[in-house]
Amino acid sequence: MYLVLLCFGLLSLVTLLEAKTIIERDVPPPRLTPEDYHRERAAMLRNEANEGLGGDIELTVNETFVNRYLMELKRAELTEGFANPYEFLPARHLFEVLDKINSSLLFHLIRKMPKGGVLHAHDTALASTEVIVKETYRENLWQMGKISDGTVEFLFSRDQPAAGWWEVKDIRSIQGAKEYDESIRRYFSLYEEDPQRAYKSINDVWSRFTKMFFALDPIVTYRPVWESYFRAALQEFYDDNVMYLEFRGVLPQLYDLDGKKYGPEEVVQLYIDVTEEFKATHPRFVGTKFIYAPLRIADNQTAAQYLAIAERLHLNYGDYVVGFDLVGQEDLGRPLVDFADMLLTLPPSLNFVFHAGETNWHGMGTDENLFDAILLGTKRIGHGYALQKHPSLLEDVKRRKICVEINPVSNQVLKLVADLRNHPASVLFKSDFPLVVSSDDPSFWRATPLSHDFYMAFLGIASAHQDLRLLKKLALNSLEYSLMSPPEKSAAQDLFEQLWNEFIDSMVGQIMANENS
Amino acid sequence: MYLVLLCFGLLSLVTLLEAKTIIERDVPPPRLTPEDYHRERAAMLRNEANEGLGGDIELTVNETFVNRYLMELKRAELTEGFANPYEFLPARHLFEVLDKINSSLLFHLIRKMPKGGVLHAHDTALASTEVIVKETYRENLWQMGKISDGTVEFLFSRDQPAAGWWEVKDIRSIQGAKEYDESIRRYFSLYEEDPQRAYKSINDVWSRFTKMFFALDPIVTYRPVWESYFRAALQEFYDDNVMYLEFRGVLPQLYDLDGKKYGPEEVVQLYIDVTEEFKATHPRFVGTKFIYAPLRIADNQTAAQYLAIAERLHLNYGDYVVGFDLVGQEDLGRPLVDFADMLLTLPPSLNFVFHAGETNWHGMGTDENLFDAILLGTKRIGHGYALQKHPSLLEDVKRRKICVEINPVSNQVLKLVADLRNHPASVLFKSDFPLVVSSDDPSFWRATPLSHDFYMAFLGIASAHQDLRLLKKLALNSLEYSLMSPPEKSAAQDLFEQLWNEFIDSMVGQIMANENS
Repeated sequence: MYLVLLCFGLLSLVTLLEAKTIIERDVPPPRLTPEDYHRERAAMLRNEANEGLGGDIELTVNETFVNRYLMELKRAELTEGFANPYEFLPARHLFEVLDKINSSLLFHLIRKMPKGGVLHAHDTALASTEVIVKETYRENLWQMGKISDGTVEFLFSRDQPAAGWWEVKDIRSIQGAKEYDESIRRYFSLYEEDPQRAYKSINDVWSRFTKMFFALDPIVTYRPVWESYFRAALQEFYDDNVMYLEFRGVLPQLYDLDGKKYGPEEVVQLYIDVTEEFKATHPRFVGTKFIYAPLRIADNQTAAQYLAIAERLHLNYGDYVVGFDLVGQEDLGRPLVDFADMLLTLPPSLNFVFHAGETNWHGMGTDENLFDAILLGTKRIGHGYALQKHPSLLEDVKRRKICVEINPVSNQVLKLVADLRNHPASVLFKSDFPLVVSSDDPSFWRATPLSHDFYMAFLGIASAHQDLRLLKKLALNSLEYSLMSPPEKSAAQDLFEQLWNEFIDSMVGQIMANENS
Repeated sequence: MYLVLLCFGLLSLVTLLEAKTIIERDVPPPRLTPEDYHRERAAMLRNEANEGLGGDIELTVNETFVNRYLMELKRAELTEGFANPYEFLPARHLFEVLDKINSSLLFHLIRKMPKGGVLHAHDTALASTEVIVKETYRENLWQMGKISDGTVEFLFSRDQPAAGWWEVKDIRSIQGAKEYDESIRRYFSLYEEDPQRAYKSINDVWSRFTKMFFALDPIVTYRPVWESYFRAALQEFYDDNVMYLEFRGVLPQLYDLDGKKYGPEEVVQLYIDVTEEFKATHPRFVGTKFIYAPLRIADNQTAAQYLAIAERLHLNYGDYVVGFDLVGQEDLGRPLVDFADMLLTLPPSLNFVFHAGETNWHGMGTDENLFDAILLGTKRIGHGYALQKHPSLLEDVKRRKICVEINPVSNQVLKLVADLRNHPASVLFKSDFPLVVSSDDPSFWRATPLSHDFYMAFLGIASAHQDLRLLKKLALNSLEYSLMSPPEKSAAQDLFEQLWNEFIDSMVGQIMANENS
């Protein structure tokens, strides 16, 4: 009996102890006091601001003054957008709001700002469509087929290439220059008044892209055009306050009227010559460098030829041809892993700068190009749109300072994201992440060489709180993560500092003048 | 002279050393061997798969068998979508592809699967519109104004409420039941054939939402309807293989034909009674719990009244009314910080389960509700769509196991994201993140109580590699992060295990039967 009571007592004790544990576990912590709450809240917001991209930059008095003006403009557009979300420009397709952006005061300010370099752009989408229109006025340009039905072909030639070809100058004079030029302008741009209707998916854009590319090719690969196109492009980048250009290209064979063909080395030499000539007359431009980037739709034999060219150029033009990449619609091309064994044979001094993860297909082949790019030791990643979906890679990229080349407008036009507020770089902007903002193929969407992308990034992707420090950091990063040699980079950084200070001083003057007028 | 030579010698040495440093710094690491490359690549992909949500679950033989079938269905839709991106269902607006989803084999499988609980849904969007149509057949329902021009009002009353009111049964008989029912069906749903045209921005959806809400209110707050609506909702959740419902509600005043008004306590008691009655006839349903969630558009005096009700219900119905929240369009309502001092006075045992960050406005007031929700000690976060844009908060949420309630379809319909492949939860799915998938207001978009959201999450948001383990984990999380008491939770988990195993066994039988037929 005592035993039973004892047992019962022990059981009760155990039950009591258990109950106590449950109660202890369930007792919620007390609420914060309002004082602690608001102090803690302010500290969290402050920390977040300091941790963001550019948060380490200290502004001078003059920069602070300009920043105040910049943030007024930014807040005005945010407030208007908040009241009427459909009118918030970064949430809309670029084609629908191009005119509105072009008349935005914030955009004008960004356009004037020295923005450093462009590290992600492609050879035949550098110069605006107006340059193409102008080039079609050259003598000896022939056309077959019609622009209107997409059968058009062009060729420069002294004589009629074959039956069915007409001289462009005759077509233009029959059709009327205004109408003909407008058809050229439309054909060589992805621009559409109703882009949502014209492009249902990424494949629609790429197929138009490819068609345009093939028709454009015989115009621009005419040697005199290639040269003058590149020169005009440099001028446009310069006018957009870009001081350096590191671009990708396929090095197509050029031709002239005498039947001479120009190979990779000659094309590279042409780039170098035009750049030097441009620099001589534009001392605020530090130069161009080239990334050899042939098409990723290639069988092994073709790929081997590409690699041989890459190695040759690396040996002979190592200062200018600073990297290797593969281009073309990533989803439909071969994945990097197909070429990995071949690529690993290239000399380690040849830099890889791979496109990777320009896709929404999470966990599929294209997406996994990110693993390959990193394993191959890529110096930068082109797009890396899907990078965030791989947290371990993201960490790796940050630690190893592999720079991600963000191209906001391109991602929108190519249907990866509709509302740029959903662009994944939004998160990357919240820490000191190695990234640059670039423009990919600006002329195909009637954008400026860099300003439209900076505008979208600053207004649509960054936090409402992020300010001039973010923009300055983006510019500085574009020099820091370029493939210039250390002395070249340091010279470029010095020049940037000078251009930046001149810009700030001139803005201070302008703001003062406006306020006093 | 010797001194000069010595100096020169020293200088040369320094130069040499410097050069060596530069060379050393510039010597790139050797490339990997192909063997190392492919081994490392496989390891990285394996690690990523194991680290993903559900990666810790080990499948039984039978589960592996079902998983194989599930992944065949998933891969088939991915492959088709990859070939024709415009036809990939999660990339399109739900309204455009509802029929296609409803005939998808993957969707059918997900519908059959036990999915645990729904932790984020609202009182008057639980039961399908068909239930509303049915309720409008009750006696004593009157209508004023027209459905077609949006002036319609309803009221249950024994007599004509005033001049201008007509009995619904008369209108229905004049207009024809089919046509009238269809107009009801359309009015009480956001469904539109061309959603892109109908809803330009989040504000358009919310304004339609609000209009619908006000017209619906006098129908559902008629006490007999409220009760039968809730009962019908439970049946629909049950039929969708949901075993538990933790829903938010405003506790509106109910009325009846005798002029009696029913206050918060009576509405809560009604929920409890209907649930108990439902459980008695449906032993595979574990119950419902309630989160009191009045409207966030409230002045301080109204808010104080809400808090008083919350405290009263917490005292008297603490087992059933398990949390407090504020609802309504977050962007346009008052931010949490406005109510913080008041909220901090509530007893710490009253759980907060705040909506926060249901926005694309990065760095603006709504976005910063996330800071407040966390500082206020919220147990879960409703939506948290913008959470990723705050890396430090994200870490905090994960460490403190604050569960994020993801509502994919809702985010799409309410214009936060167009292509669900861009939904930020994509990243959260890649680690063992505390999250559940829920449905918010399923009846407003003609979705099932949970299956459409699971389908979108599984096919559109998760990686192509994520499989049955993810789905099982989502179901388990919905019980784990519920606010059931420990014994209730444990009973629910046991029952889930049983339902899950029955589902797996029945699927094995079905797949075998299909293969042998």
